[in-house]
Amino acid sequence: MPATPSLLIRRIRPLGASPVDLLVQEGRIAALGPALDAPPGCAVEEGGGALLLPGLVEGHTHLDKTMWGLDWYRNEVGPRLIDRIENERAFRKVSGHDAAIQSLRLARAFLAEGTSRLRTHVDVDTEAGLRHLEGVLRTREAMRPVQQIQIVAFPQSGLLGRPGTAELLGQALEAGADVLGGLDPCAIDGDPVRSLDVLFGIAQRHGRPLDIHLHEPGAMGAFSLGLILDRTAALGFQGRVAISHGFCLGDLPEAEREALLARMAALRVVLITSAPAARSVPPLLECRRAGVTVLGGNDGIRDTWTPYGSPDMLERAMLIGLRYNLRRDDELAIALDCITAAGADGLGFEDYGLAPGRRADLVLVQARTVAEAVVARPVRQLVVAAGRIVARDGALLPGPWAA
Amino acid sequence: MPATPSLLIRRIRPLGASPVDLLVQEGRIAALGPALDAPPGCAVEEGGGALLLPGLVEGHTHLDKTMWGLDWYRNEVGPRLIDRIENERAFRKVSGHDAAIQSLRLARAFLAEGTSRLRTHVDVDTEAGLRHLEGVLRTREAMRPVQQIQIVAFPQSGLLGRPGTAELLGQALEAGADVLGGLDPCAIDGDPVRSLDVLFGIAQRHGRPLDIHLHEPGAMGAFSLGLILDRTAALGFQGRVAISHGFCLGDLPEAEREALLARMAALRVVLITSAPAARSVPPLLECRRAGVTVLGGNDGIRDTWTPYGSPDMLERAMLIGLRYNLRRDDELAIALDCITAAGADGLGFEDYGLAPGRRADLVLVQARTVAEAVVARPVRQLVVAAGRIVARDGALLPGPWAA
Ligand SMILES: [Zn+2]
Ligand SMILES: [Zn+2]
Repeated sequence: MPATPSLLIRRIRPLGASPVDLLVQEGRIAALGPALDAPPGCAVEEGGGALLLPGLVEGHTHLDKTMWGLDWYRNEVGPRLIDRIENERAFRKVSGHDAAIQSLRLARAFLAEGTSRLRTHVDVDTEAGLRHLEGVLRTREAMRPVQQIQIVAFPQSGLLGRPGTAELLGQALEAGADVLGGLDPCAIDGDPVRSLDVLFGIAQRHGRPLDIHLHEPGAMGAFSLGLILDRTAALGFQGRVAISHGFCLGDLPEAEREALLARMAALRVVLITSAPAARSVPPLLECRRAGVTVLGGNDGIRDTWTPYGSPDMLERAMLIGLRYNLRRDDELAIALDCITAAGADGLGFEDYGLAPGRRADLVLVQARTVAEAVVARPVRQLVVAAGRIVARDGALLPGPWAA
Repeated sequence: MPATPSLLIRRIRPLGASPVDLLVQEGRIAALGPALDAPPGCAVEEGGGALLLPGLVEGHTHLDKTMWGLDWYRNEVGPRLIDRIENERAFRKVSGHDAAIQSLRLARAFLAEGTSRLRTHVDVDTEAGLRHLEGVLRTREAMRPVQQIQIVAFPQSGLLGRPGTAELLGQALEAGADVLGGLDPCAIDGDPVRSLDVLFGIAQRHGRPLDIHLHEPGAMGAFSLGLILDRTAALGFQGRVAISHGFCLGDLPEAEREALLARMAALRVVLITSAPAARSVPPLLECRRAGVTVLGGNDGIRDTWTPYGSPDMLERAMLIGLRYNLRRDDELAIALDCITAAGADGLGFEDYGLAPGRRADLVLVQARTVAEAVVARPVRQLVVAAGRIVARDGALLPGPWAA
């Protein structure tokens, strides 16, 4: 890809502040201030007073599973977690689901809506092997110039139940996955100590961080979370563990919850939530007060698990706002934080933010305030990713990212 | 307004069924079937295989309060119900809020998104008197040819606390409000028996149905609900009482809840829910199994109470789906039912539905199934209201409804 041209965007309001101009050079924010001069040969965009947001961050999705852009999938699945896992495995045997094509479709849809950093879990199991991973690796490569994708090698069918899974996870990390995933060490694996010992062992051997799906409710989830925190401390994984969902934190008595949150904060364990409306959820404001970083994600989008989800992260921020009853403007700024700065911080994406020197990942919308951007989710007037204009008025522009 | 011209819409799929043509004459559905002939002088629309939905139904909103289309309202309100009530009263004193202009703006936005029937609560209190009602009555009149609006005279500040409120409610019904509203007889009025006796007394004298906001949680709400059901039975209000919110039904032990639901079903008392993500809610599927009609509404939209809400009722159906974890296609049809047939049935809107003889309220969207319409909320390709094409591609067309 050729070198990124310079770009001056006039009259935009960073997070709703007074209008400034913003200069992009070599893919980064070079300057931010009133009435900047355009260097020779610099492209100029009129912002028209638009609200400027930093590039949006998707903290937890499953690009490999989505049926985005395919025939409508008629969902007739039973209600239990295990029903959904088995239904998906059965569906894949007959559907010829192509994780490369599907993940690329959805990654592009994310980009069009302003998401320039994203973490996706990718199924690794003894039936599919590394096939889904290979597909998503291709997508990561195709999108790399404009969208940063972190891949979690995810044992969707459990770590212990199918011999060979642990080895496959190691191979996935060797093949290019960034993060090691885990899943319900009690409820799915049935042997939490051994499950977590094996999991942390793989992470140690490969020197990788962890992101563990923890759906387990109440006392069971708290027990598993305690085991995870024990190992995080004992094995030196401070700042390298994420808990996805963590529903149990929404079920526990306050004293027990506060104790777990204090340990998480001390160990810099982050929480990733999709803010589901129908389940207990970790209390967002209490988590933040305790010093735990909380960030947002869709979880699955339009797949055999769920018909819901959207590549528009402002919609996820709205759903976070609704789930946590965030109504004041200062509270809606927290909902936005979950899909911007807290997202980048919690996932370890670097060079993030609206400051000189940072990667120029920018989203312009017609909104008067951050709160309005969250509740109204306006069409993306302009999306800049790594300094390049990649989308305008909600649609991807031609370029390698849309090929 | 001139007589409604005939209209033939070709190739549309009622609720996802096989394609048919639909003939509209004199504002009603005249025929529905394959390959209909266009009568002489009949306008013809090509549906292009679009999904056909009946006109959408908003069951509970507050058109008079909205700040839709105004400057952004910075919400800095405290968290209690009484904070929000007092904040709104204080705001109105200084803002010059115009309920006529605002209700018309939002009613039009609803129409553009396909809502042809709606119920709105209108504040009646000793400070504003009937001013808000007069504004919303003008809106009802302006929209009457294409949108049916039911007005609930709503004592937002309580019925007993401010002497003169009961008389004002009676005057509101005389002036044109259709339904008598109520509010938390324990938590707001502090004297549930007297509050409900006064309320039912007004309803009896004026021969009007009731729609009571019941936010009270748990045992308190169940107590109030019991008092309401007692009076519904004793005073012959069967089929004429709606409970809005009814959060307590989400808090109660199953046996107690089932007993209340059985009484509600026998008395044909309906439930209206906004499906809030952050509160207990009546269990939708159990309510339906018990024979209680449940329908959906936004509650407030973009007002001093809440920044959320949307005139797109498909979005409300999605939020109902998310709140009740409706994932299967047959479950998503229930979410749609809450904003279509169950809505019309529960609110007493007549001539509703996709059958010959019914009022021609039609919505076309590009979706393959009802489930997809709910989760994707596609732009409204065409909206027909009382036989007239009122909106296309998401925008109102010129006409008296958009004047
Ligand atoms: Zn997940
Ligand atoms: Zn209300």
